[in-house]
Amino acid sequence: MIAEILCVGTELLLGDIVNTNAAYAARELAAIGINVYFQSVVGDNPSRLKQALSLALSRSDLVVMTGGLGPTYDDLTKETVAEAFSLPMELHQPSLNAITAYFNRTGRVMTHNNEKQAWMPKGARVFQNNYGTAPGLAVEQNGKRVVLLPGPPREMEPMFHEEVIPYLKSLSDTVLLSHVIHIFGMGESMVEDKLKSYMLSHLNPTVAPYAKEGEVQLRVTASAKDVEEAEQRIRPVVGEICDLLGDVVYGIDVGSLQNALVQKLLEKNRKIATAESCTAGLVSKRITEIAGSSQVFECGIVSYSNRIKAQVLGVSEQTLEQYTEVSEQTAREMARGVRRLSGADIGVSVTGIAGPGGGTPEKPVGLVYVCASCDGFEEVLELHLSRGRRNERENIRYLASSNALALAIRALEVL
Amino acid sequence: MIAEILCVGTELLLGDIVNTNAAYAARELAAIGINVYFQSVVGDNPSRLKQALSLALSRSDLVVMTGGLGPTYDDLTKETVAEAFSLPMELHQPSLNAITAYFNRTGRVMTHNNEKQAWMPKGARVFQNNYGTAPGLAVEQNGKRVVLLPGPPREMEPMFHEEVIPYLKSLSDTVLLSHVIHIFGMGESMVEDKLKSYMLSHLNPTVAPYAKEGEVQLRVTASAKDVEEAEQRIRPVVGEICDLLGDVVYGIDVGSLQNALVQKLLEKNRKIATAESCTAGLVSKRITEIAGSSQVFECGIVSYSNRIKAQVLGVSEQTLEQYTEVSEQTAREMARGVRRLSGADIGVSVTGIAGPGGGTPEKPVGLVYVCASCDGFEEVLELHLSRGRRNERENIRYLASSNALALAIRALEVL
Repeated sequence: MIAEILCVGTELLLGDIVNTNAAYAARELAAIGINVYFQSVVGDNPSRLKQALSLALSRSDLVVMTGGLGPTYDDLTKETVAEAFSLPMELHQPSLNAITAYFNRTGRVMTHNNEKQAWMPKGARVFQNNYGTAPGLAVEQNGKRVVLLPGPPREMEPMFHEEVIPYLKSLSDTVLLSHVIHIFGMGESMVEDKLKSYMLSHLNPTVAPYAKEGEVQLRVTASAKDVEEAEQRIRPVVGEICDLLGDVVYGIDVGSLQNALVQKLLEKNRKIATAESCTAGLVSKRITEIAGSSQVFECGIVSYSNRIKAQVLGVSEQTLEQYTEVSEQTAREMARGVRRLSGADIGVSVTGIAGPGGGTPEKPVGLVYVCASCDGFEEVLELHLSRGRRNERENIRYLASSNALALAIRALEVL
Repeated sequence: MIAEILCVGTELLLGDIVNTNAAYAARELAAIGINVYFQSVVGDNPSRLKQALSLALSRSDLVVMTGGLGPTYDDLTKETVAEAFSLPMELHQPSLNAITAYFNRTGRVMTHNNEKQAWMPKGARVFQNNYGTAPGLAVEQNGKRVVLLPGPPREMEPMFHEEVIPYLKSLSDTVLLSHVIHIFGMGESMVEDKLKSYMLSHLNPTVAPYAKEGEVQLRVTASAKDVEEAEQRIRPVVGEICDLLGDVVYGIDVGSLQNALVQKLLEKNRKIATAESCTAGLVSKRITEIAGSSQVFECGIVSYSNRIKAQVLGVSEQTLEQYTEVSEQTAREMARGVRRLSGADIGVSVTGIAGPGGGTPEKPVGLVYVCASCDGFEEVLELHLSRGRRNERENIRYLASSNALALAIRALEVL
């Protein structure tokens, strides 16, 4: 099945918002084996919308549309699709009930034009919206399918995942199943090099790498007649790859470094505390993004000045004088200090030079020390994170925080 | 001039990356008055790329393309455009020199296929790439123009801003100039309501609102024969709007709350320190995003546990017991405590319930107290930030941090 994605909205055309819907839909479709050949964006303009839809229907079997399902006169997606398929519009009573209930629940007044959102092309399959008023829908004619989804990502994404994916899967008699291997500490080209023969020789499951912000993810995807068979195909391959790559693999299907860390802390009933200089709260912010982190995160100290390093964290004046604040020794004393101060099981620290100012020939921008310290484990990493790119400061801080999280995961193995 | 944006790359079609290039180019084009009617994405596939380009040229005067300028055989954008315009390819010696110099500078080895990046359609205008190897270019024929840019945003964005915008401006004899009014603490619909007559009656300058993550920005744009005249048109309108909206305006062209805060701190030579509970480092992380913040940011304490609130920040046991950690009193003592601890001029604190767990009927998820304290100013805000949306935890934390930054800006007015 060949698909394309057509997003409707003037705010996209103006660049006021980034089109995350297209990426989300594309990723979800790829994950179930549907090929996307084109993506397009068109404004809330009837004739150009019509033109774009008719082009999409002429070259694809499935058109996934987002946006233009709102209550106002310029929301035209549904009507344009009905016209293309020569379908009359009719009131869909369950949707009207759901919209009315939504307004009652959120304590807002329903206006007359909201009723428009409950009108559907005759014969449409309706997808419920649990996070807003506009239902989604699918229509089909002569083997051509159009799926229509609301524009706001917080409505579109759950609807896509919970309702559209099962609908599309039901059209096929094979299942596609993926597991993701999360890697930190090895670059994409090195991973590819180590797994080249795997990626070329394996067609089922396939092995596809994806690099992002200093990490590499390997998606292992099998197609089979049912989930059990797909699992049986995937499991040995995931096992072999993990053996081959060793301890740069920090988890399977764990989502992110911070999630892997928090889950491990919860499992082992351990607490963590952070002492940050150049990342200035980014490590603690990432850890506490995870719901439930309050059970495992004790405290964080952002010690920009040497006074705080000494006074709150207990870094010795001598260390600061002899080695400066950007040094292995200071990182070590910061991690120990925050652990002592907080009573946490693991102390993690980051100190370095994020730039753009502050670098010297001996200690250039991008030099960062990261330490994790707990009973039975203490390690400092010296990192050189400058890549000469734009947003250097942001990149250095992000990579430094990722290294701190990854080192804490390794420390936990010992505890 | 009618434009469209055509982005080339299989990683976009697969949803592996979000198409920020399209949004960036659209925003830059809109800012100089060029209308974008379509955006499309196509993979690294010769026949579909050709098809997409010929469609774009049939309906637009200007096609902005990104991606497919790399050194490998599947990078085909330039060749496809040359074919569409029936132009031969020729070696562009200055580009070859620049590419060679780039490899020498970054200490990497230049391979033979990098030379491909220096071949251009005959007569092309070449844009230099200061952040990578692929030059950009523009070709023109019979009033149709195609601009080709490299795919990586860190290369594409500076090239667009520094070279493509001046090129496109040179095609027109009017200039467009914008100033942005930054607003925090008033919703988009309220802003629109107050300025409705402005937005409708003013055609030059135009006034356009844009809401994002709890903030509203108003873009005031004038078209004129030169910059001076445009400034003269804009200035009185910006002044009137600021008077009308009052102190919810936190700056003109300041970029963000954190930038406005850091610039004000630098101006006044004052220092700030943060004490965070539910935001857990997000406030300090945002402040220290700004280059130069190390001169004004003293320290941050992330006090998740009550023990740290008492021990490090000096919040009294009695306050914690009587009012709990999520209370006006605790927020106040946290702000005072971190100020005392650090010696900073302003202490800012955040304490609240970000969820999903931890809420009670009296203190529900979304209840947040924010305090700023300095000589002559101390204020606590009680915020109710739950909106019943997905990513509730992230939203609550972000809005809480924005409120803390905005309150610190207000405190600075007094200092």
